[in-house]
Amino acid sequence: MEAKSRYNVAIVGATGAVGQKMIDMLEHVAFPIDELRPLASKRSVGKMVTYNGRNVAIQEAKADAFEGVDIALFSAGGSVSKQLAHEAVERGAVVIDNTSAFRMHENVPLVVPEVNKEAIRDHQGIIANPNCSTIQMVGALEPVRQKYGLNRVIVSTYQSVSGSGLDAVEELKDQSQAMLDGTAVNAEILPVKSEPKHYPIAFNALPQIDTFEDNHYTFEEMKMINETKKIMGAPDLSVAATCVRLPFFYSHAESVYIEIDQDDVTVPQMQGVIQEGEGIVLQDDIVNQGYPTPLSAEGQLDIFVGRVRRDLDVPNGFHLWVVSDNLLKGAAWNSVQIAQALIEMNSDA
Amino acid sequence: MEAKSRYNVAIVGATGAVGQKMIDMLEHVAFPIDELRPLASKRSVGKMVTYNGRNVAIQEAKADAFEGVDIALFSAGGSVSKQLAHEAVERGAVVIDNTSAFRMHENVPLVVPEVNKEAIRDHQGIIANPNCSTIQMVGALEPVRQKYGLNRVIVSTYQSVSGSGLDAVEELKDQSQAMLDGTAVNAEILPVKSEPKHYPIAFNALPQIDTFEDNHYTFEEMKMINETKKIMGAPDLSVAATCVRLPFFYSHAESVYIEIDQDDVTVPQMQGVIQEGEGIVLQDDIVNQGYPTPLSAEGQLDIFVGRVRRDLDVPNGFHLWVVSDNLLKGAAWNSVQIAQALIEMNSDA
Repeated sequence: MEAKSRYNVAIVGATGAVGQKMIDMLEHVAFPIDELRPLASKRSVGKMVTYNGRNVAIQEAKADAFEGVDIALFSAGGSVSKQLAHEAVERGAVVIDNTSAFRMHENVPLVVPEVNKEAIRDHQGIIANPNCSTIQMVGALEPVRQKYGLNRVIVSTYQSVSGSGLDAVEELKDQSQAMLDGTAVNAEILPVKSEPKHYPIAFNALPQIDTFEDNHYTFEEMKMINETKKIMGAPDLSVAATCVRLPFFYSHAESVYIEIDQDDVTVPQMQGVIQEGEGIVLQDDIVNQGYPTPLSAEGQLDIFVGRVRRDLDVPNGFHLWVVSDNLLKGAAWNSVQIAQALIEMNSDA
Repeated sequence: MEAKSRYNVAIVGATGAVGQKMIDMLEHVAFPIDELRPLASKRSVGKMVTYNGRNVAIQEAKADAFEGVDIALFSAGGSVSKQLAHEAVERGAVVIDNTSAFRMHENVPLVVPEVNKEAIRDHQGIIANPNCSTIQMVGALEPVRQKYGLNRVIVSTYQSVSGSGLDAVEELKDQSQAMLDGTAVNAEILPVKSEPKHYPIAFNALPQIDTFEDNHYTFEEMKMINETKKIMGAPDLSVAATCVRLPFFYSHAESVYIEIDQDDVTVPQMQGVIQEGEGIVLQDDIVNQGYPTPLSAEGQLDIFVGRVRRDLDVPNGFHLWVVSDNLLKGAAWNSVQIAQALIEMNSDA
């Protein structure tokens, strides 16, 4: 990508939960944009998005829509990325892809800027944005890994419905009202829209996010396992995940157990290392009941960490509670951070 | 306690979430009751409970209310148990206590009948019913421990608001409606009524159940850790817990990681052992998206287990998802099972 003072930026999936936040984040950082080109499926053509107070018309996401585009942020599902990302690259764009389509491809950097920003330099046209639940976990753990080493991670997630898109947000609202009213509850979206069986999410918990793999793990769980190792450059790190969808709208929370390489680390030392981490806010005050929650993290860009405890039996074991807005640091904000790093590296070169 | 054909049974806390279910469960098993004596605080005196289609008037829970009582089921909070359990015992009753008041006392058996029914024989007037989140976990793990040994447990819980009583159930309803309406949300009950700070539970997750201990764990987490070791008679078992309150009404779910003493156990073998366990139902069918949820377990007496997986790195590691109705197996049903075992042992003697 040629270094410029202003860039043409396409948003693929501009009407989606993440796409809308991408536009917000570009605005938030005053990204040097010449033309913003919101793209979506045919049925959204002509609708408007608002950017810096101006209405911008949505165009159809197809190959020639990428003519003249410098940076294309994709968040319209894996099939759209598989179909159009290479078309965008062929037309000279750098793609920052927020789907799972290319994340594990060898030639595609998978980036959380606070963790492995330098990997961006190796891109061959596509840079992948990790899975939402992965980003906040590796973001929280990287300073710990750098300071004390890390050899094991076991995570149980508490994930909001917005990770399944705006339809799932509406489904939770509708089902919640129906249950409060004692009327019939329709379940059509969660846990996975394309699967045969749907369960109510309102006042419930669903231990399925994405489809099942042959090894009995869900694809979401395998994403957390594989992506964590790739981002941290730690193929031998032991990672296990159980992913659960819950009835809240925004932010994911995670109960994370880790084993580090040292036996003698205290809680204040661990808190200190986390607090110093880039993009991390420590909220851990047991005297004043201070800890992050999905509601407190909503709309925030940071990764929040609380409930830091030493394991009572394992001298190198610690427990943490990690919360972040899944649409922001977990998706749109991380993508825009990658775009910022990309143009920064461009001007270095 | 003298063996009889019918018993006088007191319910302390008869108007509470658990007390009401205790009466339901006594009815459900046609417990041989001569007189049912529902007890509660002064302000509930004169209110009625329904038992076998008859109205029974609530009396005040005070020392002389236990005259003539054979079995007293307590579920009115730890302070009431501390004040009145010994009064009941002095008057000849056996107390089955559903609070944390006596659980860790050396002379008080802590019982999940499927796990350690024989401990009941050692009682000295008081038998303790474990914490709700502990019961379902040890119930699910005991058959595994017996077959393969067990040396490590790490649990992250997903707990319903009814564990904090009927006020918390109402709070979740009210807050949910207020959030859906976009009106002001009041938080006065959760996470802990007596603590200074309250957070909304509707569309949120609170990583605090009960008060904090000096070691940064909550009392709920320490209950799970200590009670599990006591019930299983396994003081050296490594147990770690993170307890989280969530916006659903009934049932607790748990993401449980275990390490057993064998390296070569397969998923079907593990499923088979769990399925054979008393009071356990295996619901684990990844082909048909089969797994338990809080809503599916509501009103059921069993412990439901799904999502059985081998850890991908640790050869003796397994992950499970355990769900049960916290007011039933987690409280009222387990207490009534203890009462049943007690009178059974009486007639043996």
